[in-house]
Amino acid sequence: MTGLLDLAGIFVFAISGALAGVRRRLDVVGMAVLAEITALGGGILRDVVIGATPPVAFTNMGYVLVPLAATVIAFFWHPRVERVLGPIMVFDAAGLGLFCAVGTQKALDAGLSPVHATLLGVITAVGGGVLRDILSAEIPALLYDRQLYALPALLGSTAMAIAYVLDSHGFIPTLTAAVLAFTFRILAMRYGWRAPLARGVSER
Amino acid sequence: MTGLLDLAGIFVFAISGALAGVRRRLDVVGMAVLAEITALGGGILRDVVIGATPPVAFTNMGYVLVPLAATVIAFFWHPRVERVLGPIMVFDAAGLGLFCAVGTQKALDAGLSPVHATLLGVITAVGGGVLRDILSAEIPALLYDRQLYALPALLGSTAMAIAYVLDSHGFIPTLTAAVLAFTFRILAMRYGWRAPLARGVSER
Amino acid sequence: MTGLLDLAGIFVFAISGALAGVRRRLDVVGMAVLAEITALGGGILRDVVIGATPPVAFTNMGYVLVPLAATVIAFFWHPRVERVLGPIMVFDAAGLGLFCAVGTQKALDAGLSPVHATLLGVITAVGGGVLRDILSAEIPALLYDRQLYALPALLGSTAMAIAYVLDSHGFIPTLTAAVLAFTFRILAMRYGWRAPLARGVSER
Repeated sequence: MTGLLDLAGIFVFAISGALAGVRRRLDVVGMAVLAEITALGGGILRDVVIGATPPVAFTNMGYVLVPLAATVIAFFWHPRVERVLGPIMVFDAAGLGLFCAVGTQKALDAGLSPVHATLLGVITAVGGGVLRDILSAEIPALLYDRQLYALPALLGSTAMAIAYVLDSHGFIPTLTAAVLAFTFRILAMRYGWRAPLARGVSER
Repeated sequence: MTGLLDLAGIFVFAISGALAGVRRRLDVVGMAVLAEITALGGGILRDVVIGATPPVAFTNMGYVLVPLAATVIAFFWHPRVERVLGPIMVFDAAGLGLFCAVGTQKALDAGLSPVHATLLGVITAVGGGVLRDILSAEIPALLYDRQLYALPALLGSTAMAIAYVLDSHGFIPTLTAAVLAFTFRILAMRYGWRAPLARGVSER
Repeated sequence: MTGLLDLAGIFVFAISGALAGVRRRLDVVGMAVLAEITALGGGILRDVVIGATPPVAFTNMGYVLVPLAATVIAFFWHPRVERVLGPIMVFDAAGLGLFCAVGTQKALDAGLSPVHATLLGVITAVGGGVLRDILSAEIPALLYDRQLYALPALLGSTAMAIAYVLDSHGFIPTLTAAVLAFTFRILAMRYGWRAPLARGVSER
């Protein structure tokens, strides 16, 4: 079940990566690279950190092929994808929720403490997007846009770690943690919630 | 034999990295950093992914010293190097061919499936150049320049994986795969072959 | 004892990262990300390279919490921190010295040759700052500013490796190597020492 959630998260992140490539007028190779790195980057970082090498992305066929399918879909039908599926950020929020939950769980299974597993869950969720922005020579949205992005992932990861400590495992806690993070992220976008600037620093 | 090919690929990538440093007017330290990362970055990524730690770059003396030698050569004789050795891109293409072949082989030896080994071969070949561009705060040429760079590496890696599946090993298939990738890359540069943009996206 | 030095280095690097976040007008999340990556990035790279996974940063509670404490301090009292503690670069130099010494020692303990351990010590020392600059979409200061930054780390790492080869271990050689690197870095800043440009390349 976690495997299916994982592939769903990979698909939505890959779509967001491939569409980012279209908006930057990259060719199909650049689109595929951004799709793969956005979808797989966070999980590869997680697996390298916990020493689970080769990372799942390099042993599971679906992990490599799903981003290629997303690239093909974005290549031919990107206007329809943008229109039908709504703003790309909703997809990104869904991937964020799924990835922080699954990432925290894998880190806990690998024996990390709940605090460190929560941190690695956040890295799993935001890592792919950060790598996508670095490859595009942009400051990661995580750092500068003052939208809540890491904090929803932190909420989802924390919920997952608490469930694990309370000995609650499986599909229900994973989905709950993912939905918590997703909802927080969507509400933050809807109402323009902002993280505070350091004391005395004014808005740009 | 593979060891010698590996060192040859490291030398040409290091020369290209050190010359990139000269063109950006970096000092000798910056030149050495770009030479080392361009030459060793892809292989380090590969070894970390397959769990072969410490990476060869941190156990083999030649891997560290060859880029330093390339830095010294570029430091004193960079105008002659640019002139005598011809356009830097020919060297880059040779390194590309050698690295995708050797990288695919090491990934297959580590037990990865042919598809994943092909992917890791491409990462081995393009990883150093991508890291060089990231360090230079530039969008990796891989993504934006619409020249064929990843696709020749994909051809060479695929050829290597097919040879491996057909139980053909050693110097001949490695060199064949490298020459295939090199030739495709050179032809793509010569004739200005381009990868397609997404449907409906116009040229910049 | 090395543990305490390590935490001290982490604190000064985290302060420098969080203050960099304030200067870039990042919110508290961005400040925390830059504090963590500046403080832990070099050590994580080192541990991944020597295969010591999960890296210390993901098993030791202090490594995660100290950068958060530094973020809180910088959030509320950044003008006082900048004023009282003097130019941020002195802190950075102290962290540089501590990290190159500790990083070289851990690499030697992991069985790397003195030359490779010296290289990994330099990476430990400069890695966090390079990752901080990459996340900020800036060319790493290491490459372009022509100030001596990597060379002091190289001096400290070399001293540490020589002490190790001469069978001198523990607090005294570690502190000596750190002070050597720190002093070289401070003198280089004070007197504007520069690394040379390639022959025939003029100043910018």
